[in-house]
Amino acid sequence: MYKVFGDILSGNCYKIKLLMQFLDIEHEWVHVDILTSETHTEEFKRMNPNARIPVIELGDGKYLWESNAILNYLAESTEFLPQEKYKKAKVLQWQFFEQYSHEPYIATARYINKYLGLPKEREAEYHAKQIGGHKALSVMEKHLVENQFFLGASATIADISLYAYTHVADEGGFDLSEYVNIQRWFRDFESIPGYIKMTRGNA
Amino acid sequence: MYKVFGDILSGNCYKIKLLMQFLDIEHEWVHVDILTSETHTEEFKRMNPNARIPVIELGDGKYLWESNAILNYLAESTEFLPQEKYKKAKVLQWQFFEQYSHEPYIATARYINKYLGLPKEREAEYHAKQIGGHKALSVMEKHLVENQFFLGASATIADISLYAYTHVADEGGFDLSEYVNIQRWFRDFESIPGYIKMTRGNA
Repeated sequence: MYKVFGDILSGNCYKIKLLMQFLDIEHEWVHVDILTSETHTEEFKRMNPNARIPVIELGDGKYLWESNAILNYLAESTEFLPQEKYKKAKVLQWQFFEQYSHEPYIATARYINKYLGLPKEREAEYHAKQIGGHKALSVMEKHLVENQFFLGASATIADISLYAYTHVADEGGFDLSEYVNIQRWFRDFESIPGYIKMTRGNA
Repeated sequence: MYKVFGDILSGNCYKIKLLMQFLDIEHEWVHVDILTSETHTEEFKRMNPNARIPVIELGDGKYLWESNAILNYLAESTEFLPQEKYKKAKVLQWQFFEQYSHEPYIATARYINKYLGLPKEREAEYHAKQIGGHKALSVMEKHLVENQFFLGASATIADISLYAYTHVADEGGFDLSEYVNIQRWFRDFESIPGYIKMTRGNA
């Protein structure tokens, strides 16, 4: 049975939980607390030398890290990952967009605000994150005018990757009220059978 | 014929050039200058709404952006991308590591130093980037003690992704002399048939 090491309140970990729910994949969830440096023990770094969550234990001594790599592994041959070459590359395109142009702004602003309590010495950084975050949200909003989900008519792991931190962007100070297509996409995403909210009780 | 929009001196673009050389893929290279905001024209943003290079035009009005997504597209069914599920996911793991834990430090420090001339107002940011960059280099160095390439005995697109900015890390102030396994890996990588240096004349 798969074992997932993570914290469901981390968007990167929540992604894995969502896909496992959608695909009804049996797994054990091991809570890891990043605020007490549980990712920096020697034991944890044997699983992921980069000392980050999530990590999945696949069995036979095999581990995989990086949330979007895990999603691609689990989604292979399912409806959440198209097989056609161009579409499959488009899924990756949106996932790399998420990790480079979205998460470092939206997730980091949320972390500074929600977990660290917006300390004075990180206020400038927090405000700077708003610009990049809104830039990413605008790219998403525009794409969703003509697309129900990121790859078209049905949800893929690209949607899971982008939903995870976008739906809690308000916790990083992002007002989403102007992004009407993103809000419509939230509703469509949340009606996928198996959907669960990002709460510790659901881990 | 594929058309690539980019600047070969950008590591993200150089990745595409390297794979195309290794696989002998015919293509046209269209130089795009980011310093004069050529990625921010309406015409460019029709190809990539995120206004970044590289972009590849695949024909039939199809475009793909994000360097690592392009690599996965071009490498499919070649020796640079394993077909086995776990190995394929490991390639992605290292590519997401590159975009999240490596490029934002090593490439950004290089950009601030080489392209912007290390202006006073970005000095603190430049110095802060050194810490994250050395952390990423240490993860790579340790992995390469027991692995000739990132996935083992032969080079994959994971190596291309990580080589692009690592081999010019010195331009961002990173002294690589202590990273002996990374240097050994450089030599192995540079002996792949078709290898070319990152110079404008090679675009």
